Amino acid sequence: MMNILCVAAHPDDIEILCAGTLVRYAQEGHKITFAVFTSGNMGDTFIPPEELGKIREKETREAAAIIGAKLIWGGVMDEHVFPDQQQRHLMIDILREADPDVIFTHSPNDYHPDHRYVSQLVFDSYFQKGLPFIPNQSKPACRFGQAQLYYMDNLGGIGFIPSEYVDISKVFSIKQQMLACHKSQVQAMQQLADTNLAEMVEVQARFRGLAAGCRYAEGFTRLDAYQRGLTKRVLP
Amino acid sequence: MMNILCVAAHPDDIEILCAGTLVRYAQEGHKITFAVFTSGNMGDTFIPPEELGKIREKETREAAAIIGAKLIWGGVMDEHVFPDQQQRHLMIDILREADPDVIFTHSPNDYHPDHRYVSQLVFDSYFQKGLPFIPNQSKPACRFGQAQLYYMDNLGGIGFIPSEYVDISKVFSIKQQMLACHKSQVQAMQQLADTNLAEMVEVQARFRGLAAGCRYAEGFTRLDAYQRGLTKRVLP
Amino acid sequence: MMNILCVAAHPDDIEILCAGTLVRYAQEGHKITFAVFTSGNMGDTFIPPEELGKIREKETREAAAIIGAKLIWGGVMDEHVFPDQQQRHLMIDILREADPDVIFTHSPNDYHPDHRYVSQLVFDSYFQKGLPFIPNQSKPACRFGQAQLYYMDNLGGIGFIPSEYVDISKVFSIKQQMLACHKSQVQAMQQLADTNLAEMVEVQARFRGLAAGCRYAEGFTRLDAYQRGLTKRVLP
Amino acid sequence: MMNILCVAAHPDDIEILCAGTLVRYAQEGHKITFAVFTSGNMGDTFIPPEELGKIREKETREAAAIIGAKLIWGGVMDEHVFPDQQQRHLMIDILREADPDVIFTHSPNDYHPDHRYVSQLVFDSYFQKGLPFIPNQSKPACRFGQAQLYYMDNLGGIGFIPSEYVDISKVFSIKQQMLACHKSQVQAMQQLADTNLAEMVEVQARFRGLAAGCRYAEGFTRLDAYQRGLTKRVLP
Amino acid sequence: MMNILCVAAHPDDIEILCAGTLVRYAQEGHKITFAVFTSGNMGDTFIPPEELGKIREKETREAAAIIGAKLIWGGVMDEHVFPDQQQRHLMIDILREADPDVIFTHSPNDYHPDHRYVSQLVFDSYFQKGLPFIPNQSKPACRFGQAQLYYMDNLGGIGFIPSEYVDISKVFSIKQQMLACHKSQVQAMQQLADTNLAEMVEVQARFRGLAAGCRYAEGFTRLDAYQRGLTKRVLP
Amino acid sequence: MMNILCVAAHPDDIEILCAGTLVRYAQEGHKITFAVFTSGNMGDTFIPPEELGKIREKETREAAAIIGAKLIWGGVMDEHVFPDQQQRHLMIDILREADPDVIFTHSPNDYHPDHRYVSQLVFDSYFQKGLPFIPNQSKPACRFGQAQLYYMDNLGGIGFIPSEYVDISKVFSIKQQMLACHKSQVQAMQQLADTNLAEMVEVQARFRGLAAGCRYAEGFTRLDAYQRGLTKRVLP
Repeated sequence: MMNILCVAAHPDDIEILCAGTLVRYAQEGHKITFAVFTSGNMGDTFIPPEELGKIREKETREAAAIIGAKLIWGGVMDEHVFPDQQQRHLMIDILREADPDVIFTHSPNDYHPDHRYVSQLVFDSYFQKGLPFIPNQSKPACRFGQAQLYYMDNLGGIGFIPSEYVDISKVFSIKQQMLACHKSQVQAMQQLADTNLAEMVEVQARFRGLAAGCRYAEGFTRLDAYQRGLTKRVLP
Repeated sequence: MMNILCVAAHPDDIEILCAGTLVRYAQEGHKITFAVFTSGNMGDTFIPPEELGKIREKETREAAAIIGAKLIWGGVMDEHVFPDQQQRHLMIDILREADPDVIFTHSPNDYHPDHRYVSQLVFDSYFQKGLPFIPNQSKPACRFGQAQLYYMDNLGGIGFIPSEYVDISKVFSIKQQMLACHKSQVQAMQQLADTNLAEMVEVQARFRGLAAGCRYAEGFTRLDAYQRGLTKRVLP
Repeated sequence: MMNILCVAAHPDDIEILCAGTLVRYAQEGHKITFAVFTSGNMGDTFIPPEELGKIREKETREAAAIIGAKLIWGGVMDEHVFPDQQQRHLMIDILREADPDVIFTHSPNDYHPDHRYVSQLVFDSYFQKGLPFIPNQSKPACRFGQAQLYYMDNLGGIGFIPSEYVDISKVFSIKQQMLACHKSQVQAMQQLADTNLAEMVEVQARFRGLAAGCRYAEGFTRLDAYQRGLTKRVLP
Repeated sequence: MMNILCVAAHPDDIEILCAGTLVRYAQEGHKITFAVFTSGNMGDTFIPPEELGKIREKETREAAAIIGAKLIWGGVMDEHVFPDQQQRHLMIDILREADPDVIFTHSPNDYHPDHRYVSQLVFDSYFQKGLPFIPNQSKPACRFGQAQLYYMDNLGGIGFIPSEYVDISKVFSIKQQMLACHKSQVQAMQQLADTNLAEMVEVQARFRGLAAGCRYAEGFTRLDAYQRGLTKRVLP
Repeated sequence: MMNILCVAAHPDDIEILCAGTLVRYAQEGHKITFAVFTSGNMGDTFIPPEELGKIREKETREAAAIIGAKLIWGGVMDEHVFPDQQQRHLMIDILREADPDVIFTHSPNDYHPDHRYVSQLVFDSYFQKGLPFIPNQSKPACRFGQAQLYYMDNLGGIGFIPSEYVDISKVFSIKQQMLACHKSQVQAMQQLADTNLAEMVEVQARFRGLAAGCRYAEGFTRLDAYQRGLTKRVLP
Repeated sequence: MMNILCVAAHPDDIEILCAGTLVRYAQEGHKITFAVFTSGNMGDTFIPPEELGKIREKETREAAAIIGAKLIWGGVMDEHVFPDQQQRHLMIDILREADPDVIFTHSPNDYHPDHRYVSQLVFDSYFQKGLPFIPNQSKPACRFGQAQLYYMDNLGGIGFIPSEYVDISKVFSIKQQMLACHKSQVQAMQQLADTNLAEMVEVQARFRGLAAGCRYAEGFTRLDAYQRGLTKRVLP
């Protein structure tokens, strides 16, 4: 049994980029944690931030509940992720609370700044999660172990070349069901970016599936670091 | 009015990877030439080569006819492309016959050897097409001009990052119609690789469209070379 | 008619790296905005910062005036660009004021830290410019549109491989005239780095011209992102 | 039970670059085939080719016998690998004879020309092994399946960044024992390149082990292609 | 006689990654400065930070003394390097104090966040070290010269491809002796990461030596920038 | 005293891409060999090949004579370089005749096919030059040593990022004088490609000089291979 953590910048990022993989982990009996760093409260041009934040937290809880995942709600203001000391402390506490064997987060080459900075904060907090003397933390240090760090695809798959694939054909409908919980964002993407989220997610999963030799797939890359070149598969 | 040439390894490669763009060129009044280097006669496990080659030539002629393109049939044996002197001579003659302003061919990083070698032969024949003293050529030298060379996407879009896009939304149905002419290959792909060609082409065009901000797109990269860094768009 | 914005770190960066392109846009009737993020007031070893900042602003206004460009003067202290919240707010306001269709800024791989951080701030402010609820902004949100983002060459063209070129042969003398307005920097570069700016700019434009097949050119790369893979040319 | 094939250019390449992994496959009950494309008969400055070829074949058979691997002896003249039609035919027959589920060969970026060309020939023969109508072959077509293709590290690990690792700690002594069979080459490397092969192999396996978090490892990269993005681990 | 500066994030980084090269510089009569940015006081799970910081400073002084190097002790809290204004000021003062002709620091692609940020701070402080009007500095500006900037290998050499090598065969025992001064860290690495530092350093130096054609080597890459493309060797 | 060999595809390639460096070697007393693989006899649209070949050989001899270099004239037909067995034999003999310590040739990423194939042939012949039993060679094996292999810039410097620079400021006029010997090609470049060779060479050398911090420079990259990671500078 492993602890699986996915840290995303906004509500719905997990569902778009990683949910199929997390469903498979959940079905195998692993413990899943969603960490959503911001409240996604700027992602609309009509609904005011305070109201939107509450809506999006509720939608995220519904999505996480579908696979029995625990939700850590970071509550950082949307579009305001910075790799500074304060947010580092928050990220260290998130990692400590999840004590992960496997971490998923955004790719450092993503084209949304919040995504990049969340990725950087996860990278930056990797060692500190297991060091007991870091000051100003709310949570005690977790294992100083060799958690594996995977980077997720981006919205639209722009310039992303996966090195790892997970077959999500059998759980794709659950992924879509989880995404559909994010009603507010499904609507906003339609208005702001003329994008049908469900269709976009299907095209992307199908495109990755063509590469992977299955119907639907999610793609990832892995961070290489000392003693973390894997000699077994930890992906489902 | 420009001369547009697409050189592909097998019948159906043009339709899968470039037809939308060629339809648009044709609609703008440019002169289109299809060059199919091999007869695609090995691409089946049941139909004997001689018979298959004839079928595929016929299917290709039908597809080219849809947009009034001229067809140059290379007739090289399928799976036997080599960047040697004999095939170089053939490729130089093909380029000379088309006298192109814009050339499309496979990417040098494609994962099918025939595609790679056709790409290499086009690259290798670029200067010679315009040099009058190359011996053993059937065709006279054409213009020694600065034709632009674009590389096409590959089957499934594996590891290919386009730097240029063409919006093919309005002509996508024509592209599919051209592809459908290749009945024998549509069937073989289903049997050999469990692939529905029409669906694969739609997923890929839609995926490139997500990147390009339109419904359907084809993606390309451009060869950079002396005096060929473009200062205007020659793509439709 | 498009709104064209160039955001640079220091006075004279625009003239060195992008002015030819901006002249061409201006000649085509587009609206040009120069945004100079710092006052360039550290760029000398003799003239004190306060005095130097005033000189450089005056010089920049003269250069911008040559093509009737609007100037936004960021006023950040030279050599003190940081991608923090305060400067993010400033950059969002700059983008909102210009409401750009096309943005030019430094490359993220530039070797001057101020250049890199300005580039990062532009990247980081892209979505926020169009989101109405971002707090603490002086300017109202502008269009949430798909502005194109281009990265400029660097000083000396070190390790920069352009993917796009603009032919500036006919306007090169205007570019040099604009650069010549920066008298203080022309002098400082001579003293600090033993560099004749006008000559360096000519060599670099000529070198890019060799690649582009014209006398003088400026080179750029483009940021690829969701729905921003261009299907038409927005460069002059 | 899978068919595992390793195609190398010279006797001793398999032992240096892949033997640990093959031992592990053998211990798991898979069927192992060594294919050595050249006879390695030029690799000495004193022993004449004909004599050396016989010595090296004998040494290779001893090494293969240690893990009960089948040996296919290509017999091409050392330093004379060319990706031409004749050697392509030979390579297709080798692949057909082994009918592999997993193929290992040299990396296309290796710095020995024979290694590169063997790699290219394997790449070039991939589809043809399963196509029944390829003329002039001695062996009948094998499965047209989705064999996975892995590229091996190079001698000294120069510029090679593995994406996959196999833990060979427990079988490292067997790898060294297999290498030691190549007495003639151990001696030649000492004379020609001042290299102690056993020590070099230990340093390299230990270095890859540092990355992989184990005592000794071998590193590989994987060829990405249509339907070959793996969703499970086929490495031991 | 040149001023050689090595800026590292933690005590023992210099010894692991650069000491052999610094010994050689010292033997040639150059002036060596060690700058250790943090006190390394979080690098243990038992010894409290305050105590650990003192131990590590003492150990570092012993190591530096072996080659008569000057030590600048940054004193930043371990795991708390940020590329912000405060630490930038500190780094500028460090560079000014050393007034370097050659600078070594961590690679921007290192996988420890402190290493990356130290690298970034060095990069960011490069020009400011020689500009006299930077406010809030303790040290006066040093030369505005063309110091060369080299990036060091990382722990375990993960994904690092050196472009420059220094032969440290004759001074390798001194490097190991310097490393051995870091008793506390040798012990912590054993406990936290199951790593024998001396053995790891030997494997890595030997591996780089295989590439460089000598027994032991250290590898580096060089920052390319305007007027800093070297036309002579400044490495020993 | 070292043996310096430059192998180029056509007459005038050495002068354009490497002559400054060779002048400096010559001035330091090293032995210089020019090897021109083809006779350049296709490089004109008016002068017939046989006549042109003679003209170009004469021009090349004049250029080589200026620095007392030996000339090996390969005599291969222009635009007909192939990496096949026959041309491999020729290249091995060329390398054996020069017995080089340092080799310069075209970059494998050059955009002229003859340049690429000459580069590949040099790469392919590296080991064989020192192996005594290679059949069908005219020359006896030379040293099996660790000659360094450098790749030259390309015409126009397209997409080439040098990692090594040679300061040719003091010998630039000699380089131009050598280039001027190639009267026929100076004329052809003007006609065929609208290029003033002397001006192009000056722009490129000046551009590389900007990077290298001198007036004129030539840029190179180095091939990394086992035991060839240099620990000293062999460039002038």
